[in-house]
Amino acid sequence: MPKTTITRLPDLGSTERSELDRLLDVSRVGHFGLLVEGHPVVIATAIARDGDSVLAHGSTGSSWMRLLGTGAPTSLAVTALDGLVVARSAFESSMHYRSAVLFGRCQPIEAASQKRAALDVITDALIPGRVGEVREPTAKELAATLVLRLPIGEWSLKVSAGWPDDPDDDVAGTAWAGVVPIETRFGTPRPAPDLRRGIDTAESVRRLAGA
Amino acid sequence: MPKTTITRLPDLGSTERSELDRLLDVSRVGHFGLLVEGHPVVIATAIARDGDSVLAHGSTGSSWMRLLGTGAPTSLAVTALDGLVVARSAFESSMHYRSAVLFGRCQPIEAASQKRAALDVITDALIPGRVGEVREPTAKELAATLVLRLPIGEWSLKVSAGWPDDPDDDVAGTAWAGVVPIETRFGTPRPAPDLRRGIDTAESVRRLAGA
Repeated sequence: MPKTTITRLPDLGSTERSELDRLLDVSRVGHFGLLVEGHPVVIATAIARDGDSVLAHGSTGSSWMRLLGTGAPTSLAVTALDGLVVARSAFESSMHYRSAVLFGRCQPIEAASQKRAALDVITDALIPGRVGEVREPTAKELAATLVLRLPIGEWSLKVSAGWPDDPDDDVAGTAWAGVVPIETRFGTPRPAPDLRRGIDTAESVRRLAGA
Repeated sequence: MPKTTITRLPDLGSTERSELDRLLDVSRVGHFGLLVEGHPVVIATAIARDGDSVLAHGSTGSSWMRLLGTGAPTSLAVTALDGLVVARSAFESSMHYRSAVLFGRCQPIEAASQKRAALDVITDALIPGRVGEVREPTAKELAATLVLRLPIGEWSLKVSAGWPDDPDDDVAGTAWAGVVPIETRFGTPRPAPDLRRGIDTAESVRRLAGA
């Protein structure tokens, strides 16, 4: 099928599943595409990898999540921006990025035990260790939550990680060239205004923020 | 039309154009959705706001960019993840985010002077002041670049910025609750291996990295 063929910049294409997994595992948000009344719509949502699937969840009241849950054809883009590539010309300037697109259809996870296990995976993907610190979801909470699984089947991945590639004429000029890394990090945790006295910052949260 | 109606969590919906502009102006990447052979496809690409439009650019060799340039119906999602909302239960835990979806059709910018002006806007949106430090694009470079304009017409915006909202039973428990900010910043600029001696880091790049 044409849609997973890297037709541009073939040197950037990666067929390494491990590279895809690494990107999915550091990403907290993905963008699902779907067709709504004949129009393409893009939805941002939290994602987590679970082995050979990507999990997403949302409210059963969300019509877009419900539509995804019917198995409508979808694609999921997961993108990390790692830096700015500052070349000697605007034309050669670009970005360091990792960009995956997965294609397929989501399946709703319906059995209560599987749903709970999937929600635990999502929670711990965002904050490792958090599941062990909070109560279990209630039956009512589970019923209000739609959990979707997108099998990792057809996908493409592009990775850009090189230096600027300026022509000799530009290299001989006076403009600077290089790469500016973009870093994402957690800031200092802020306790909720209604947090009761004497409750220390959760261990999972302290580990997250490296504090 | 139903697709820009905030049917869920109406308190999160914002109709403030200034809030939308702020999100677009801090975002470097957007996700375009489009229909390819009947399937929804999502493409990540650099974006920049130019008044009442969003600009994107790519190679004329990119079939997806060319398809967008034909005026095919599209939606553009622009998302910022600002923090983790750590509630006392997994169910109430969520994220601080700003999530915009724009709907419409892109127009290719064809006149050379307008194309150059639009590319300057894109370059300076990524690195303010960079346009003044590099040579102008050549006619060949301009011809190889597709520049698209998506008018800001129909859009929706959701903003989540509150504290955890736990039920009283959970607040009375022992679990911590709060918010962990997520911060994105530029790292130390790294000069290209072929940078000639004696060329200082560009002023625009130093300003960017706050160095």
